[in-house]
Amino acid sequence: MSTTTAPVSRNGVDTATLFATRDAVKGQPELAGFQFRARNRWISGTHSRSRIGGFYGAGAEQQHVRGEMVLDADHPLVLVGADEAPTPVEYLLHALAACLTAGLVNVAAARGITLHEVESSVEGDIDVLGLLGLDPSVRNGFQQVRVAFRIKGDAPEEELRALLDRSRSRSAVYDVLTNGVPVTITAEVG
Amino acid sequence: MSTTTAPVSRNGVDTATLFATRDAVKGQPELAGFQFRARNRWISGTHSRSRIGGFYGAGAEQQHVRGEMVLDADHPLVLVGADEAPTPVEYLLHALAACLTAGLVNVAAARGITLHEVESSVEGDIDVLGLLGLDPSVRNGFQQVRVAFRIKGDAPEEELRALLDRSRSRSAVYDVLTNGVPVTITAEVG
Repeated sequence: MSTTTAPVSRNGVDTATLFATRDAVKGQPELAGFQFRARNRWISGTHSRSRIGGFYGAGAEQQHVRGEMVLDADHPLVLVGADEAPTPVEYLLHALAACLTAGLVNVAAARGITLHEVESSVEGDIDVLGLLGLDPSVRNGFQQVRVAFRIKGDAPEEELRALLDRSRSRSAVYDVLTNGVPVTITAEVG
Repeated sequence: MSTTTAPVSRNGVDTATLFATRDAVKGQPELAGFQFRARNRWISGTHSRSRIGGFYGAGAEQQHVRGEMVLDADHPLVLVGADEAPTPVEYLLHALAACLTAGLVNVAAARGITLHEVESSVEGDIDVLGLLGLDPSVRNGFQQVRVAFRIKGDAPEEELRALLDRSRSRSAVYDVLTNGVPVTITAEVG
């Protein structure tokens, strides 16, 4: 699926497998259906813990290589939490930076561009008058999110900028955060 | 700000401080402006690491009690990652469950309801034909997210369900995921 003259790995991306995977899914689109999952349990106050293990994809149930991974979340002291872990909204910022970066690196590998450094800073502004129920005209979530990248690689400036543009245009997290997604919530109580 | 007959803590929530904080912000709305942040650095392939430390809120720069916290992300093997950490989209599911749970517990405490157990399972469906660039009619992100709660507490079923309704109506992450948020991306390259 790749020529033998192509490098096996660039930027830590196995480009031959990347192209092969894309070709495999193209020929068998049912492999493209994925389902990701998290199971969360309340600990105390605003502190809870999620466990992330299995997911469905590539036509089968999958397990993460590292087994079940644990993520905690809490509110900070100034919002009456115990600050045991990052806040839920900080996890959104991390997810956005990580998704854009992974995509950028994949695109660079596919285009034969070697990267030296990719860093990003993400900021999200939130006015807690909304979530505290003090002003119904203020939204609960972020009002604005800003991502500032610093990218170093062996390509002209415009080619490096194009990597980021392509990554944004294919990013799952950017899509969800900017366009929203239908969320249904059910409960078994008692 | 609270009566001496009110319990100091319920569900691990310091309700007196919760009400006092709400009153303080009500009287001084400029305290409500928060900014959360993450700094991400690419490691190799689709693996990157975010550091979460300071944030702005309650009128001052704040530091998380545990200092700088580190979150990794990666793609799974079947998407040509090294599977060193949860995927970016799994972080979104964790954030949603954690935010709804923290809000639910706070609302329960404010209403004098003692909870015994709060668990949730979150699933997000994604068709990777979109993010692989194989079908422009398929979105990159989740097509649907489902959250299933199990709540046990000392209140009638309808009151426990009402806690979840109120939490959803005040949740920062639910708002961002369902309504979207403006995201601006800039880059310094070279």
